[in-house]
Formats: sequence, C-alpha cells, structure tokens
Amino acid sequence: MPELWDGLVVGASLATLEGDAGWGAIEDGALGWRDGRIVFAGRRADLPGEPERLADAVVEAGGGWITPGLVDCHTHLVFGGHRAAEFEQRLQGASYEEIARSGGGIVSTVRATRAADEESLFAQSLPRARALLADGATTLEIKSGYGLDLDGERRMLRVARRIGQSLGVDVRTTFLGAHAVPPEFAGRAEAYIDAVCQWLPRLHGEGLVDAVDAFAERIGFTPAQTRRVFEAARALGLPVKLHADQLSDGGGAALVAEYGGLSADHVEYTSSAGVAAMARAGTVAVLLPGAFHVLGETRLPPLAEFRAQGVPMAVATDCNPGTSPLLSLRQAMQLACTHFRLTPEEALRGATVHAARALGLHDRGILRPGLRADFVHWDVSHPAELAYWLGGNLVRSVHAGGQRLC
Amino acid sequence: MPELWDGLVVGASLATLEGDAGWGAIEDGALGWRDGRIVFAGRRADLPGEPERLADAVVEAGGGWITPGLVDCHTHLVFGGHRAAEFEQRLQGASYEEIARSGGGIVSTVRATRAADEESLFAQSLPRARALLADGATTLEIKSGYGLDLDGERRMLRVARRIGQSLGVDVRTTFLGAHAVPPEFAGRAEAYIDAVCQWLPRLHGEGLVDAVDAFAERIGFTPAQTRRVFEAARALGLPVKLHADQLSDGGGAALVAEYGGLSADHVEYTSSAGVAAMARAGTVAVLLPGAFHVLGETRLPPLAEFRAQGVPMAVATDCNPGTSPLLSLRQAMQLACTHFRLTPEEALRGATVHAARALGLHDRGILRPGLRADFVHWDVSHPAELAYWLGGNLVRSVHAGGQRLC
Ligand SMILES: [Zn+2]
Ligand SMILES: [Zn+2]
Repeated sequence: MPELWDGLVVGASLATLEGDAGWGAIEDGALGWRDGRIVFAGRRADLPGEPERLADAVVEAGGGWITPGLVDCHTHLVFGGHRAAEFEQRLQGASYEEIARSGGGIVSTVRATRAADEESLFAQSLPRARALLADGATTLEIKSGYGLDLDGERRMLRVARRIGQSLGVDVRTTFLGAHAVPPEFAGRAEAYIDAVCQWLPRLHGEGLVDAVDAFAERIGFTPAQTRRVFEAARALGLPVKLHADQLSDGGGAALVAEYGGLSADHVEYTSSAGVAAMARAGTVAVLLPGAFHVLGETRLPPLAEFRAQGVPMAVATDCNPGTSPLLSLRQAMQLACTHFRLTPEEALRGATVHAARALGLHDRGILRPGLRADFVHWDVSHPAELAYWLGGNLVRSVHAGGQRLC
Repeated sequence: MPELWDGLVVGASLATLEGDAGWGAIEDGALGWRDGRIVFAGRRADLPGEPERLADAVVEAGGGWITPGLVDCHTHLVFGGHRAAEFEQRLQGASYEEIARSGGGIVSTVRATRAADEESLFAQSLPRARALLADGATTLEIKSGYGLDLDGERRMLRVARRIGQSLGVDVRTTFLGAHAVPPEFAGRAEAYIDAVCQWLPRLHGEGLVDAVDAFAERIGFTPAQTRRVFEAARALGLPVKLHADQLSDGGGAALVAEYGGLSADHVEYTSSAGVAAMARAGTVAVLLPGAFHVLGETRLPPLAEFRAQGVPMAVATDCNPGTSPLLSLRQAMQLACTHFRLTPEEALRGATVHAARALGLHDRGILRPGLRADFVHWDVSHPAELAYWLGGNLVRSVHAGGQRLC
C-alpha cells in the first residue's frame, strides 16, 4: 500500500498556470501533497481513489480558487523607521532638495537602519513580511542596502534570514551594498565600490547572500562601477540582478543581460537593444508598479516589446519606505493592471512563475506534481478578482512547503 | 461620586482633528467614553483622576495613534455578482461597446442583483462591509441603484439596513433609483423618472431612505430629470446629493447646490461657477479617487478652487463592481494623495469630519467630548502613515458608539 499523502484539498478550482497562456483552470479540482511537494494537481474526478484513503488530512474547500503561492521577487522590507513624514512633506509641496536638506531621503533610512540593533530591526521589519504573507506571499526576496557599511549590511541580511525562519516563508537574500554612496564616502564612489567588493565575500562566507544587486542610474552607480560589483559576484558564483533604467536609459538592462543576470528591475526606459539582450540571456523583466504609482511616473516599460520578444514579466512590491510603501503583492498586481495594462493573468504569472524564475527558482510558481506545495486558497469566484479588488482580505489559507502558515 | 465612564484608553497619541488645520495631535493622550459618547479627549496628564477610578475598563494602548472612526460617505457596496471578468476583458483590449454587447456593464450588475434574493444579496454584500469596517470605517453610506425596480431597490435598501444591524456600524441609506434607465424603460427615461418618483415615497414610508441621489451626466439623467427627483425628495423633507460632473461639466454641482444638497460627488469637471455655488450652499465635494484610478482618468477635480473657496473635501471609496472595486477607505485616502495630491491630513479629514458632513452628520468625525465614541486605534507612529502604506493591516481596534467592533 502506497504511503499516504500529507494533505489534500478538494472542492476548489485550481489556477495551475500550466502552459504558456491562460489560467490553467481546473474546476472542481483537487490538490494533494507529501513531504512538502505537490503529488496531485488535477480534477477531483481524476483522483486515484477516495480522498480519505489517499491523504492523512482532507479539507473540503467549499469553493474558491487555489493558485500557486505568490513570490515577491523584489523587496527592501528590512529597514529602520519609515518615511511617512517625508511623504507628507512632498504633498505639502516640498521639493526633493528641501527634503534632502531637512535630512530626508534614503539618508534618513540609512541613519535609522544603522541606529537599530538586530532585535529592533527584526521587530520593525517582521510585520511587513507578515503582511505580505497574509496576502498570499510564500517566497520573499529581501535586499540589503540601507546599512551601507559592513555591520549594517550584515545585520539586514541576518534579519532577512530570521524573518524566513520565524514565519516559515522562504526568504532569498540579495546583497545590495551598491544601493547608494553613504555619507562617509561622499564624492568617493570608487572607494565605496572597493569596500563593497570586499564585504561581499565575507557576507557570502557567512551564508547571508543568495544574489547580488546594484542601483545603476544617473543618480546611482556607473556602468563601470556596476561591472566591478558583478565581477565580484561572478568570482563567487553568485547570480546578479540590477535596478536598471528606472529614470533614464543607462543601458542597465543590456549590462545585466551580458552577465546572464536573473532580472532587470524597473526597466521603464529600457531600449529595444536592451530588450533584445534580455531575451537572448533569459533575463526576466521585473515590473515595479508601486514606485511608478507613488512617484506619479508616466513612462511605461516597453511591455509590447517584452511580450513580442518573449521576455517574462514579473511583478513585485519593491516594498521600501521611500518610493513604494506597499505591503501586498496582490495590490502590486492591481497596480500593474491599472498602470501598465497587464491582464490579470499576466499579473498573476508575474507574481508566481515569472517571479520564481527572476529568483532562479524552478521548483515553484506553478501547481504541478513535483514542485513545492506552496499555494493559496482565495475566497473568490474568478481568478481575475485577485487583481481587481483594492483592499479587503481574500485569503482563506496560505501553505508553504505543505505547511499552513495562515 | 460621579458615574464611572464605560471605557478609557490611555497611552496612545490622538489625532483629534480639532480646528481647521493640523492633526489636532495630542501625545500621550487619553480617550474616555460613556453611554456611547466621548467624555474625555486630551492629555493623559489632564485626566481628572487616576484612570482606574474614572472608568470601568481601562486599556493601556502601548503606543500607536487614535483617530476618529472613518466615515465612508459614498458606496454602492450592495450588489449581486462582480465584474472581474469584465475588468479582464477591458485589459485584453475589449471596447466598451464589445463589453456591452456581451452583456457586461451596469446591466450585468442589475441582472445579478435582481436575480439575488434578500438572503443572497446580504451574504454577498456583508463581506465588503466587513472589509471596510476592518480597515477602520464606523459609518457607511450605502446606495441603492442596481435594482431599478421597486422590489429590487427595496431589497437593496433592506440589505443595507441589515448590514448595519449585523456589524454594529452606522449605515446611512441613499435611494439612487435614478442611477440608470433599466432595459424595460429603454428610450423612455421620462417614464422611468415618473416611476422613481412614485417609488420614493413608498420606500421612505418603509423607513428605508435617509437621502436621495441621482446620476446626472451626458450618459445619465438630464438636469430637468434630476430636478424632478430632487423635488420628490424635497416634498418628503429628504436631503439630496448628486453624481455630478464626472465625465463632463453638466452643471451638476450647481444644480445640487441650488437644492442645498449635502454633497456633489466626483466633480472632476465642475466649473468655477459650480464651486462657487457649492461654497454658498455648504455643499461638500466628495472625491472618489478609486474610479479615477481604475478608469485611468486624467482630469483632476478643481482642488485649488475648493481649497480657496472653503468647500470641504470628503474622500470615499465609491465601492462598486464596475469602476471602483475598492474595499478599504484607507486605500482611497492613499489614492487621493497619490492621484489628487491631497495631503495625508486632508485625506484623513476627508474620510472623517468632512465625510460626516457630507452625510449631514454633526455628531462624529472629530475626537471631542459630546460626540459619538467612534474611533480607531492604529498601529502607526505617525498619522500620515494611514495614507502612506498600500495594503497591510494597521488596525489594532475599532470602536463605534463605544462598542468594540474589531
Ligand atoms: Zn528596489
Ligand atoms: Zn457612485
């Protein structure tokens, strides 16, 4: 007699996302798992026996839809303080210069993050991760980049790992030392990149780094500086990604594609050549509609070209205190539909299978036997509702690796 | 010895919204209530005695901010079905004509609402009201307007009343028979207005109507038809409000002001003359950024003129299945800041004291002795956070009339 499954849900529809298009919809579906992996995803009528004889625990879903667990592939959710007062100042008419002069901007987050010890940083950041989980995220990428010194970056990455252990979500860490030049290196960007390239092997040696990112932009690091960071990553066998072409076309997408990068993120100003380079390299376009929304931007990413050239589009929250105070990947999906005119299906693929690929993960993002049993049961009658409602609580349950998280 | 208060919260900051500007902030505040009314809103140090000797139940808040309960002054949250599939069709490129031909648009909601019996309509609508409550709303306006026949309109208004009784939130009903011309009156708008004017006194006689609204627009009812509805309301002593100037300047704001209306809602195209008429009549401008967001509109309401002429600006969800599937008034505040550049303080006043005024209610919307003990305790360190975060759960508790609702 075969071993029993650990769990089985029947009586919900499935959006498996199998295939290149469509929801992969299965009405009156069944989803079974064992040892953290899916063993059955199909029609209830096709189950190989009576539910009670197949699994230890059988749940009658009573309707709703099950999708793959959401994957938030771009967040800066570990930080000290917040910038709501700066948000207010901007709406009261203050210019960026005035805000910077009064100590605002990223510098204020660096200051608050440096001032927070590990316990405080963990306590401040955990509710944000919990909010993302409560709205369906089972995998979170979390970047460093507000410490900008070895201790601060280490503390951020340690907190990111602790969040994963504490909540049961899978956390992938990204070292973003090259996020900005800290005050003590003002005017000495090259020397700061030297330091970043020295910190990286140490942090990697401590098991804290899954990937490496940089902020390439007119107001960020130059292509040459970005290359130095990428070379340091390559020497360690670490995959790279890039904040690219958000405010201008700096050739960032082509640069990260040249390094076989996992993703180019933002990409509002990416040129046709950049799109082609991404397509050749298999680099994912990570769309971040939260920052677009909050900053009131108007330049759209080259969506038609991404579609035409088969560049997978992911959607992420970019959760950060300055430009995207977004605590729900479902809301990012809504913004992607409203601002970028993605279809709800593209938005869901962008927050699952394409986001997983943007993290180099091929074991999740689809409801398929053999993949991780990461899934969400939603209280909806159509999967497009996930990208339709703003606010509200649509989640009935969230499972990661077969464990119920909420 | 004086009677004890029913409850007292200490150790949170208060945003009382006293005065014409500012948060009315009180650090280390205290809020006491008895018989559903606030009896103390001030500094903890100014309490007239030890907390335990003042109130039956004392809560140590441990930080956070307390604001007045939110007032959602414009919703269509009672309806059958949803229109997520239509949202998807639009993003797949279908035109409004194609959607209408395939049975979409408001007609589909009218069909689903007519098909739902009272129990079903209640069961479908209650979760939406609960979502609004869970994000801080203690007063909800709910309109009819998807029945468009006597039975259907009555059923919607009865469900609205039941929602209030069931959840403990205060529900204000609005008769919106003049929302659209139903199929059976196609081409006979005048005859439909005859019917609406006959239904109104009957529904009012059944205790179901607190106010009267109409949809005045090129694609809605003419000024002359709107006047007939308003005259019928006036004959019953009922206050009026109007869906005005959303898609074009139809003089709607001036028309509703002429009737001393509570509010003109949407008002994107309202002219200077309309603003002046509203200022003279004390008519509130109800801003609905959800529809603006979902429809991708670009025409901003005349915000500077409203400010200059002292027209109070309210903010509401417009929760409806077609143009504003918005289940959180806090998210409407966020959209009002992002799209309309309201300040977070204007957004909070718009969702409390100004929204109360838009419903003709002067007993709520401010933390002040004598007013209703409707308040929300938020897990934030700055009140601007309410309009800053997208998603997440910031609510620690919600009280209406001194009763804890969640
Ligand atoms: Zn970012
Ligand atoms: Zn409306």
